[in-house]
Amino acid sequence: MKSLIMIIDGMADRPIPELGEKTPLEAAETPNMDKLAENGINGIMDPIKPGIRVGSDTAHLSILGYNPYKVYTGRGPFEAAGVGVEVKPGDIAFRCNFATQDEDGIIIDRRAGRIREKTDKIAETINSMKIEGFEDVEIIFKESTGHRAVLVLRGENLSDKVSDSDPKKEGKPPKAVKPLNDSPAAEKTAKLLNRLVEKSYKLLKEHPVNIERLKRSENPANIILPRGAGEVPHIRKFEEKYGLKAACIAETGLIKGIGNLTGMEIIEVEGATGGIDTNLKNIKDAIIDTINSQYDFILVNIDGADEAGHDGDLKGKIEFLEKVDEILEDFPLDEMFFVFTADHTTPISVKDHTGDPVPIVINGPGIRVDNIKRFNEREASKGGLCRIRGSDIMNILLDLMDKTEKFGA
Amino acid sequence: MKSLIMIIDGMADRPIPELGEKTPLEAAETPNMDKLAENGINGIMDPIKPGIRVGSDTAHLSILGYNPYKVYTGRGPFEAAGVGVEVKPGDIAFRCNFATQDEDGIIIDRRAGRIREKTDKIAETINSMKIEGFEDVEIIFKESTGHRAVLVLRGENLSDKVSDSDPKKEGKPPKAVKPLNDSPAAEKTAKLLNRLVEKSYKLLKEHPVNIERLKRSENPANIILPRGAGEVPHIRKFEEKYGLKAACIAETGLIKGIGNLTGMEIIEVEGATGGIDTNLKNIKDAIIDTINSQYDFILVNIDGADEAGHDGDLKGKIEFLEKVDEILEDFPLDEMFFVFTADHTTPISVKDHTGDPVPIVINGPGIRVDNIKRFNEREASKGGLCRIRGSDIMNILLDLMDKTEKFGA
Repeated sequence: MKSLIMIIDGMADRPIPELGEKTPLEAAETPNMDKLAENGINGIMDPIKPGIRVGSDTAHLSILGYNPYKVYTGRGPFEAAGVGVEVKPGDIAFRCNFATQDEDGIIIDRRAGRIREKTDKIAETINSMKIEGFEDVEIIFKESTGHRAVLVLRGENLSDKVSDSDPKKEGKPPKAVKPLNDSPAAEKTAKLLNRLVEKSYKLLKEHPVNIERLKRSENPANIILPRGAGEVPHIRKFEEKYGLKAACIAETGLIKGIGNLTGMEIIEVEGATGGIDTNLKNIKDAIIDTINSQYDFILVNIDGADEAGHDGDLKGKIEFLEKVDEILEDFPLDEMFFVFTADHTTPISVKDHTGDPVPIVINGPGIRVDNIKRFNEREASKGGLCRIRGSDIMNILLDLMDKTEKFGA
Repeated sequence: MKSLIMIIDGMADRPIPELGEKTPLEAAETPNMDKLAENGINGIMDPIKPGIRVGSDTAHLSILGYNPYKVYTGRGPFEAAGVGVEVKPGDIAFRCNFATQDEDGIIIDRRAGRIREKTDKIAETINSMKIEGFEDVEIIFKESTGHRAVLVLRGENLSDKVSDSDPKKEGKPPKAVKPLNDSPAAEKTAKLLNRLVEKSYKLLKEHPVNIERLKRSENPANIILPRGAGEVPHIRKFEEKYGLKAACIAETGLIKGIGNLTGMEIIEVEGATGGIDTNLKNIKDAIIDTINSQYDFILVNIDGADEAGHDGDLKGKIEFLEKVDEILEDFPLDEMFFVFTADHTTPISVKDHTGDPVPIVINGPGIRVDNIKRFNEREASKGGLCRIRGSDIMNILLDLMDKTEKFGA
């Protein structure tokens, strides 16, 4: 028996006055989700624990059975792994922006004209660069989507206890990176980063891609601004931990990074944008192909509902949930344990994650099917699972899959 | 106010197609359990936590408020305590089989013809024996039911980190016991055990009981095969921990062992077999006698439903649950807090324990009685207790009994 956890990112919400105090999930027409509720056991889940406002990364870690308080050191390592950098435990990883600095050293555009093209060429110039006095440190740099990139420092005596270079506002110079404790490693890393930022401007200001951009009156991507330092944690591989060969179908670098760092096979999907315009048909096809291949466990993350939540786009969220519902039609539910849930609540009214629990339903043989008929936040709370935690999910699945040893006699 | 926890071992189950997707508890006629549900507060309970596949021993420890991850070292110590060996913290305890070895040193019967009689005479020969070179180690050996026995080693520098002697299959010689780490204690214990197994054959092959057996063409119990080493843990006595004088009515050595190791009085019941053929009337009488004596707290374990579950005996399980229901008629529920539950789920379809939660109901004065009318897995999940853990039970009971100090002001 295989198992599949499908996480509709930010799907859960709070009651909305203009919907007559319904949530988007309560207002949407979701006959296939409702069928899951009717044939399954329902409940609500706190990704970490009640009231904790989780990120998608920490929620996914918890749901996969990793303690985020132990393994989560920041977003950097997951973003880096998500764009395909083969990070190693101990590496220091950063998220970066390509930005535009003027001749007076002021950041005039934190997103370099929302650059979209040829960032790979710019990244090549930074990748593998050497900083004088820090020749022992390997510098790995890779573009991500748009103006985003990742930086990884590899070497001895480095630390993630350093401040950000990104000033967060335009009209200011890059912030001097400071050590956040008095260890020699933090001091070394801060010094190195300051030189790296300075040198990136020297290397990039006359980069051919930027010369072209200037010709087109576009802001050049002439400086790198690192932030969000995190030391790459030791994470036990999913297969080693559970004995399950796992694949991950995700749209965002962050969740792909979680798949990567836990040793899952990342299945790429064409047209998966992470937005409400994503190609759900291709995602469905990829899921079905993956179910029909050699994997025991599949993690799926679909991101659009979260984006709509962050944007406060009520109509967009409801419509996207209805589109997600469509891909559940004729879903191959036989011979599989299927967990359908969200990683957190992203209320339209808050435009960010909140600590509310999320609805969850499990389908599969032997389940104690309850009498819940609709899939949404409030119906789920009356279901047979009652209220569980993200960290319970893998234990419940492994037990259903008969993959656990009995503890005791 | 007294309190009583009655655990119907393995009572909970999963939906069964031939019962129209009902569980045995849902299919059985259980008017007295239903009365408990109607007059009580209901819920579901994870013996340890959701999805964890517990043993009866680890579940009972958790329900009694002991952390099984701290005090459970293996089955040996509980089995030994269960047959009345006065084990001490630090002792190394083993479960053993009486087996039959042929002249070529091959185990031809791991259960010595399922010997039932005069094993006490054979045990006497092994008990208190001395092994050359290990004269400092006290050897305690006692027969259990049938072909089962327990061995306890008492002395300095002994370890439970040793492998089993039992080859688990017939047609093989006893396995050489090996140290499982490189401590001198593990090495000493392994060496001692190997000599003990060897010497047991020398002492038993011409034992009068075996001579008689051979005359009757029965396999002799001529060798001892130890397995499942466990160091006897330090366990705080129940009375010391809670200030409650406690008694234990149990059928199996394992649960009696838990009662013994936690310092409870063990009440023996004639005709209590641990099977579906057990004498439930005698068990009921013993419970009522115990309620009417000086104990504040009584733990009852009835094992038949678990046996039926392990055997995949659906009819047997339903009938046994109905018989258990009968003993609840006219149960002296006044002046008592009564917890009725299971220690784990033993589905007919799995024939072993699973990690599903179990139904639980509490009766007694002051309880927030809910509107649940039937006692079973799914109705309970809608009850007022919602979903709790085994480790919550004693706190809930102590609070109801008004036996706790306020934490704070």
